[in-house]
Amino acid sequence: MTTSLPASCGDLLDEVHRQSPLVQCITNYVAMSLAANVLLAAGASPAMVHAPEEAGEFATLSGAVTINIGTLSTPWLEGMCLAAKAANDNGTPWVLDPVAHFATAFRRKAVDTLLALKPTVIRGNASEIMALAGDASSGRGVDSGDSVERAEVSAMVLARRTHAVVAVTGAMDFVTDGRDSVRIAGGSELMPKITAMGCALTGLVGACIAVAPASPLEATVCALTCFSVAGTQAAQSAKGPGSFAWQFIDALAALRGIELKAHAQMSRA
Amino acid sequence: MTTSLPASCGDLLDEVHRQSPLVQCITNYVAMSLAANVLLAAGASPAMVHAPEEAGEFATLSGAVTINIGTLSTPWLEGMCLAAKAANDNGTPWVLDPVAHFATAFRRKAVDTLLALKPTVIRGNASEIMALAGDASSGRGVDSGDSVERAEVSAMVLARRTHAVVAVTGAMDFVTDGRDSVRIAGGSELMPKITAMGCALTGLVGACIAVAPASPLEATVCALTCFSVAGTQAAQSAKGPGSFAWQFIDALAALRGIELKAHAQMSRA
Amino acid sequence: MTTSLPASCGDLLDEVHRQSPLVQCITNYVAMSLAANVLLAAGASPAMVHAPEEAGEFATLSGAVTINIGTLSTPWLEGMCLAAKAANDNGTPWVLDPVAHFATAFRRKAVDTLLALKPTVIRGNASEIMALAGDASSGRGVDSGDSVERAEVSAMVLARRTHAVVAVTGAMDFVTDGRDSVRIAGGSELMPKITAMGCALTGLVGACIAVAPASPLEATVCALTCFSVAGTQAAQSAKGPGSFAWQFIDALAALRGIELKAHAQMSRA
Repeated sequence: MTTSLPASCGDLLDEVHRQSPLVQCITNYVAMSLAANVLLAAGASPAMVHAPEEAGEFATLSGAVTINIGTLSTPWLEGMCLAAKAANDNGTPWVLDPVAHFATAFRRKAVDTLLALKPTVIRGNASEIMALAGDASSGRGVDSGDSVERAEVSAMVLARRTHAVVAVTGAMDFVTDGRDSVRIAGGSELMPKITAMGCALTGLVGACIAVAPASPLEATVCALTCFSVAGTQAAQSAKGPGSFAWQFIDALAALRGIELKAHAQMSRA
Repeated sequence: MTTSLPASCGDLLDEVHRQSPLVQCITNYVAMSLAANVLLAAGASPAMVHAPEEAGEFATLSGAVTINIGTLSTPWLEGMCLAAKAANDNGTPWVLDPVAHFATAFRRKAVDTLLALKPTVIRGNASEIMALAGDASSGRGVDSGDSVERAEVSAMVLARRTHAVVAVTGAMDFVTDGRDSVRIAGGSELMPKITAMGCALTGLVGACIAVAPASPLEATVCALTCFSVAGTQAAQSAKGPGSFAWQFIDALAALRGIELKAHAQMSRA
Repeated sequence: MTTSLPASCGDLLDEVHRQSPLVQCITNYVAMSLAANVLLAAGASPAMVHAPEEAGEFATLSGAVTINIGTLSTPWLEGMCLAAKAANDNGTPWVLDPVAHFATAFRRKAVDTLLALKPTVIRGNASEIMALAGDASSGRGVDSGDSVERAEVSAMVLARRTHAVVAVTGAMDFVTDGRDSVRIAGGSELMPKITAMGCALTGLVGACIAVAPASPLEATVCALTCFSVAGTQAAQSAKGPGSFAWQFIDALAALRGIELKAHAQMSRA
């Protein structure tokens, strides 16, 4: 990297606003509206297209594909696999969000199938990433029972094994490609009190990687830093999770590269 | 029309509040919550009922049916067709929202099937309406790549061919039945930054046409004008798409016929 | 009951925050996001898991299961039944929300099937509870056409017949186990103007009963009282349903046992 990482991230966010990439989001029912509004706030063009009849065809039109198993079902899994395969065939990056993959046999099998389709980026909470790496975790449902710090080694192991960039999000985010690693501070304690923030962030990783497909680490760090900076700003005037949610969207929509560079709280790990 | 169009629209909105029509909305997963809140704000009673087992039966109870193909799948398409057929059999108006119908073969075929069931109103963005009329458009995903102005002729051609009222929404809306045409100004540049605003508007067209089934042009103009006036009002104090979204709902809920007449920005085309 | 009911409810809310129970919510597409945010605001951990492949397995991990038929379909009904059965097999309480069950043959049959699986609590609006008890009601779609007062006798009949706690929500809520009955005042006239508030409340009943499975009446009264108090508080500064929605979440997130005891408006019926 010739420029600094915050500078790269700033430029990358501006590029999302300039190109308005089409991002196919196959996400859960809870997250769809928030994910779409997050992508629109960042200047991208989200499209929620999941049916097996068209998921693969639509992936060939998209700059990136994101796949989240939050409200999984068999026909949706079929659409996810077709979209991931089409993405691979076209050299299009795709992002996996393995929500609560450890909770049931159905999820465990689904995530194995999706991992075999070689995601470009995997984003999860600490419990999800630890379990994915084969480590013991305290996760029950969709909320993490572990700290990000405890998941850092698991993330590096998983990144080396899968050749994906792995992002663990929580109080202090951690992103690694198995060699280079970055920690991102900031955000707000209110963020886990708003449903689907992590799922929406997965969508934003898709938007960033769509404009920088050759730089998955920077693209992932960019998306996480956008959430961190907008989250910190929204928390300044929020009185609870209800007011945080819309102030976060306002802050994200106003955010441009120059502010991102100025306020990014990231460090090489 | 014996009274002026703004006056008709104002009376029609008051009638929605008075009658609280039951409107069956078969819409996409992203739009459901916003569409329901928009209809409730306008005094209507929305019901999201899509399963083939009951979609036709429920349509016979409803004042209008709205069908949006945003997150299409085969079982939903079956429910849509049953609802449209039942609406036709009962003389109930129904509204089609052909989201990104040009994007995949699955959508193109679905929209052909639905068009053959003779919608009373078709509402889309400029790219959707142009493609539906058989003209070249710049649409990719769900966001329009064309201006409404460029779609006006396509809308008239489509209206004459289908005998439906056709509405193209964007910076300056255009509504036509193939003979009479109306342009509606107002609204806000923030509206396309909030996901599913167009889909929710389709639901509101359903609410208006439920109380004025014999006047589909006026009903469509009324719904679009409600969005235009409430959008202009919300934009006055919004700081971004997050604060716009809830202020729009507040403005729409407070809107009555007398304000609509006073603030409507419409002109015969 | 050795302590007063408001005191029990206050302690119970604090217990939800302390234990953060995992609650499996099988709810409709419209309600999912609001229901998840309501449960997070009250300190619980919601998980939306519905597929037949995993709904039963996930129920064995959950502190409570809630089932809402708002956007019913055949595969979802299968998942609902598997979750309810697994809940019963594990002695886990489950809550039924029979949305518009009278509207179509498909819904009537579904709700019969679910009632046979013996819900711990049934929550509905007046029209739904009256129809469920076999009484004539004025319901059409998902909104109630009857007052809660008219549904009180129906609720008691239904509670005795099903051995479930029955809650009728509206301007003045009514909760009964067939012997003891409680009325809860408060809330706001804006609440029925926000879609899925009732469905989200069903989820909160699940969170409360998860920490007090032996006291379904108190748990249900606690959840309804939380909505009543937070609704009254939110209405003080809301200018319409849009601003009410996020102020309600802020109020609910700030609510603890001590305020609940102080502001509860409940009386033995």
